[in-house]
Amino acid sequence: MADIPTPAVTISAIAEEAGVSAPTVSRVLNGRGDVAPATRERIESLLRARGYRRRGSRGGEMVGLLDLVFNDLDSPWAVEIIRGVEDAAHAAGSGIVVSAIHRRESSTRQWLQNVRSRTSDGAILVTTDLDSSLRAELEELHMPSVVVDPVGVPDLAVPTIGATNWAGGLSATDYLISMGHRRIAFVAGRPELWCSRARLDGYRAGLETAGLNVDDDLVVPGEFDYESGFRAGERLFGLADPPTAVFSASDQMTLGVYEALRRRGLRVPADISVIGFDDLPEARWASPPLTTVRQPLAEMGRLAVHTVHRLARGEAIESPRVELATELVVRDSTAPVTVSSAE
Amino acid sequence: MADIPTPAVTISAIAEEAGVSAPTVSRVLNGRGDVAPATRERIESLLRARGYRRRGSRGGEMVGLLDLVFNDLDSPWAVEIIRGVEDAAHAAGSGIVVSAIHRRESSTRQWLQNVRSRTSDGAILVTTDLDSSLRAELEELHMPSVVVDPVGVPDLAVPTIGATNWAGGLSATDYLISMGHRRIAFVAGRPELWCSRARLDGYRAGLETAGLNVDDDLVVPGEFDYESGFRAGERLFGLADPPTAVFSASDQMTLGVYEALRRRGLRVPADISVIGFDDLPEARWASPPLTTVRQPLAEMGRLAVHTVHRLARGEAIESPRVELATELVVRDSTAPVTVSSAE
Repeated sequence: MADIPTPAVTISAIAEEAGVSAPTVSRVLNGRGDVAPATRERIESLLRARGYRRRGSRGGEMVGLLDLVFNDLDSPWAVEIIRGVEDAAHAAGSGIVVSAIHRRESSTRQWLQNVRSRTSDGAILVTTDLDSSLRAELEELHMPSVVVDPVGVPDLAVPTIGATNWAGGLSATDYLISMGHRRIAFVAGRPELWCSRARLDGYRAGLETAGLNVDDDLVVPGEFDYESGFRAGERLFGLADPPTAVFSASDQMTLGVYEALRRRGLRVPADISVIGFDDLPEARWASPPLTTVRQPLAEMGRLAVHTVHRLARGEAIESPRVELATELVVRDSTAPVTVSSAE
Repeated sequence: MADIPTPAVTISAIAEEAGVSAPTVSRVLNGRGDVAPATRERIESLLRARGYRRRGSRGGEMVGLLDLVFNDLDSPWAVEIIRGVEDAAHAAGSGIVVSAIHRRESSTRQWLQNVRSRTSDGAILVTTDLDSSLRAELEELHMPSVVVDPVGVPDLAVPTIGATNWAGGLSATDYLISMGHRRIAFVAGRPELWCSRARLDGYRAGLETAGLNVDDDLVVPGEFDYESGFRAGERLFGLADPPTAVFSASDQMTLGVYEALRRRGLRVPADISVIGFDDLPEARWASPPLTTVRQPLAEMGRLAVHTVHRLARGEAIESPRVELATELVVRDSTAPVTVSSAE
């Protein structure tokens, strides 16, 4: 009984010793800026002095693996994000372990068990709704983690990387207005997500700045998927006074809008202009090729790798939330309003 | 200098002792059936007796990681295969490390270095052309490996999992013939790949069985991508006597054919029927939704996990090559030939 191992240094022990709360220690470990410099310094020196180790690392040495966790791999963004993460991780000599947890407790538990058995330098979570129990587990594992978030989850305790949704909504609307469109419809995304609200607000700002009214008939609900885009198209083109242009909050919904138009014998862009959001590979292969607001998904993935590696090295990061710029990509689905369609 | 480690048991030492060639030992390690049972047994007992260890494993224990290696992640199949592999690996308690080697020596080297530093239970390679130096390295690492091969690479030393390309070509052609089509064009895939030849031969077999001639004007080259499909469409619909139906050897080429048709003001399927190959998610979202030959990519990925795990446990597998069935998925891009288009 001579060789009793030193008990692992816990966050709460550090917090007590530093005279702060445990969440404050977590904030320092998560690289967040909202801790007073003197407090941060005191906590950091205690972490070093007490030999605090992040669960993932082997005594501070990188193990050369990062975890990339999706809810589901059939999300249309998945492969774009994997591409960016793989690229940056590979360049840093790290492998990426890709998992899907399907929002299921059992899958999440299995993933955590796998992580525990092999260790990992950190986790990149791509998730529209970070489950609070997963969040707690990650805290407990002390694994540096970053959320790549194409849909705008606010207020997470971990750093998040997103895109400028409001500016994207504005640029698409501005472009349609510049082509002479006045009756511009908006197909919204899942209403519970912030990105949906930001894109809608960008659309509204574009109309209002141009002195146009927002017609409530032209703002229709959607769920980001093909089917809801199709339903939105059916509804819009059944209106007595239909729009001359449609801006959808995702490319997938736009493909549903295309199909609704085809079934009515309407042509894009001769009869109707259409703009999407995301710039998935499908946008380029649509017929006609789709004008859309590009979300830099691969770049967001690359930045996530750099961020999680910085956290793993114990560095502070500049901001808990970074948004990369969206960009309008003009292809063949948009045209100046025609006299006949504007009538 | 007392504790000299036992030198690692090599394949050539085992081969010498068993009185066979090194490739024969490799064949046993790769689970291939083409080794005489008595020889296999002798080699297997020597491998056990000499304590031969696959490089990847920790003393025979699974480490809970499989490598999934692509040439490029922007292949349209990538996410489907990742989905199947992740699903089966996850169920088996294993993580998957996804890498892209970009057909570059440097990337391949970096991947191998990463694998060496962390160990892995085996590799699933998704590649249209398995580089011979990579093959040699994997042999040397003694990592069990399986090739998932949506395009038909024959004659690899490692087990491969593919799909029934010839039967798929036949079923698409048969279906068009059953709809009354007689002038059926074929847009071929990359000519150096076996799957392209098998799909073409299935098309030819369908025509010939129905007593139709193969018109060389209607067989046009392609490269599996959108652009070559577009060019093929331009060429076919510029013919004095154009086809009434087009069967392309990939969904991506079919989307290019759609665009060529749209630019000429031709409608699918009213003017022309179109069939693709693969059944990527894009097929369902095309406008109109695309009739296509389904390759069971996710299932191929799942089978690859089971196969590589069996190899890692030292089990023999039934066949070095397994092909899963393709299946015609009928959607809205095909219709009976019309009098006007058949004239």
